Amino acid sequence: MTRRVRVVICGFGKVGRNFARLLDTKRQIASERHGIEIELAGVGELKGSVLSDGGIPPSALADYFEENGSLGDYPETGKPGWEGADIVREAARTNVLVETTPTDIKTGEPALTHIRLALERGWHVVSANKGPFIRNYKSLKSLADSKGVAIKLSAAAAAALPTLDVAQTCLAGAEILSIEGVLNGTSNFILSRMRTDNMSYDDALAEAQRLGIAETDPTLDVEGIDTANKLALITNVAMGADLLPEQVDRTGITGISADEVRRETANGKIIRLVGSALKDKQGGIRASVAPIGLSADHPLASVDGSEKGITYTTDTMDRITVSGGKSDPRGAAAALYKDLLNIYRAP
Amino acid sequence: MTRRVRVVICGFGKVGRNFARLLDTKRQIASERHGIEIELAGVGELKGSVLSDGGIPPSALADYFEENGSLGDYPETGKPGWEGADIVREAARTNVLVETTPTDIKTGEPALTHIRLALERGWHVVSANKGPFIRNYKSLKSLADSKGVAIKLSAAAAAALPTLDVAQTCLAGAEILSIEGVLNGTSNFILSRMRTDNMSYDDALAEAQRLGIAETDPTLDVEGIDTANKLALITNVAMGADLLPEQVDRTGITGISADEVRRETANGKIIRLVGSALKDKQGGIRASVAPIGLSADHPLASVDGSEKGITYTTDTMDRITVSGGKSDPRGAAAALYKDLLNIYRAP
Repeated sequence: MTRRVRVVICGFGKVGRNFARLLDTKRQIASERHGIEIELAGVGELKGSVLSDGGIPPSALADYFEENGSLGDYPETGKPGWEGADIVREAARTNVLVETTPTDIKTGEPALTHIRLALERGWHVVSANKGPFIRNYKSLKSLADSKGVAIKLSAAAAAALPTLDVAQTCLAGAEILSIEGVLNGTSNFILSRMRTDNMSYDDALAEAQRLGIAETDPTLDVEGIDTANKLALITNVAMGADLLPEQVDRTGITGISADEVRRETANGKIIRLVGSALKDKQGGIRASVAPIGLSADHPLASVDGSEKGITYTTDTMDRITVSGGKSDPRGAAAALYKDLLNIYRAP
Repeated sequence: MTRRVRVVICGFGKVGRNFARLLDTKRQIASERHGIEIELAGVGELKGSVLSDGGIPPSALADYFEENGSLGDYPETGKPGWEGADIVREAARTNVLVETTPTDIKTGEPALTHIRLALERGWHVVSANKGPFIRNYKSLKSLADSKGVAIKLSAAAAAALPTLDVAQTCLAGAEILSIEGVLNGTSNFILSRMRTDNMSYDDALAEAQRLGIAETDPTLDVEGIDTANKLALITNVAMGADLLPEQVDRTGITGISADEVRRETANGKIIRLVGSALKDKQGGIRASVAPIGLSADHPLASVDGSEKGITYTTDTMDRITVSGGKSDPRGAAAALYKDLLNIYRAP
């Protein structure tokens, strides 16, 4: 009684290729535990795509892309000049779009187009790209609802750290009163280094850059922009809010001095960049991102180095914290794969 | 498009009554977010039960029980002399059994009878009672599978701390390589007190008893029996194992001296009673419960006082830890309620 599920992947970067490889390595789990067989119907990429009625071998395609840098000339099923939108428009009998194109927070494109097309066609959407959802979650969700399909964003929210499914599944029926999250690994790495090794901000940033944890231009991470984006997404999905990143009161970590870290440490506090959203008495949401000195018994105090964590405070279940989870492309791919399985999972 | 779901509760102690009250207080959430209206079809108790075709007002029934100590004489729908099994046998058009009778680890009764009857009738089962599942999970699960219904055990595993749904939903598709859990709040409270207040075991136990955290006979908690039971249940559900509590290599905390705690603390370690299960290379499971000195950066090191926590180590998502969650009857009731909603939740 195995059910066939056909997927299209848009974007074949590291996350997309890792996801494709999971389709092969996890084939047995999908079939034995979840009763589904996942077939790769097509992959959309900028410089040419692939599309097949009979299914494409995922790992072989990833190998091919890594050797050739494009898909258009892939034997038999290659489509030179086709992009993601063409594949989503043309793929037959497809059930799920797996969206892994690069994030554009402002326009959400090209993912937004792919996702709208997919939902219109009655496909489920699983996305590692948060761009299209930052400003359009509500409208895309109601389009999905009208088509009876799901939108799953675990990989977009914090890769392998389960944030959204904890809120939606593990806390079902509870009222989430507040969210606090250490959501940016780079900032947390820098602050952790400043504390444990008495480093200056500049030295800690330089080390993060040397280790490949921080980018050459670290602005998005250290100014709290990435945290604000993730916080808005999580708050909108988990608390049913309608929060835009620019409504988040935001302070980054660039102004933190070694002295300040030392002072907090001497007071038994641990500075972390915390994104928080709180339901006020009128039912509105107050959201902020700021470096905060957490007392040692706060559950996010122990989320160290480049780790991430999130704490939900609820009415009936008290306070629940999740931490850990791989932040690399394989972790994000595993989160996509999980979301895909959960669409078809029996309760 | 609201769907009516009829439930029978067996056992009307604190957890059962708290669950009944949630049916009222969470009515709007169930209908708006999940599209279901939950109707109480009956409640089974030792000294008389209630059963109704038209539905029973849950909070009013809880009030009545708290005043009268039995249900048999409840106006109109009371069934003097009827017990849980009678209600499960007779209830019409019912969808879910919510099982909250007291736990008997050895026989699993009376819950085991209720659950078998309910599954035979094609009802889903949501249970706060782990007794029937310690020895019979596999056979009950295959009975449920053959009937196309679900068994949900969040409340049995660790009340409001999400252990099983993290494993099954948040880690779907990942291979769980090991489980480590601080699963017994009483033992953790005692060890925490010994460490932070330099107390002897006896003094810390006495304080736990005074605060109502430990029972007069604390054997189940401090000898690691409760931890072994929960560990077996979680391991069987999350890792597909077939582990019995007596196969868990078990050491309690009664032999821990204040000196030993001081020594560990001086070495930067924090002693916790940890239940762990590890997949070996042959695919077998090695499981143990023992006090372990955790280094400060272990994610369970910060699970302090009467809190609980669990760490899963996986192949693709790395290490994920969940901690917190209310351990009281309302937390357990909230976990039952969550499981019930998730049976009917769209992906």
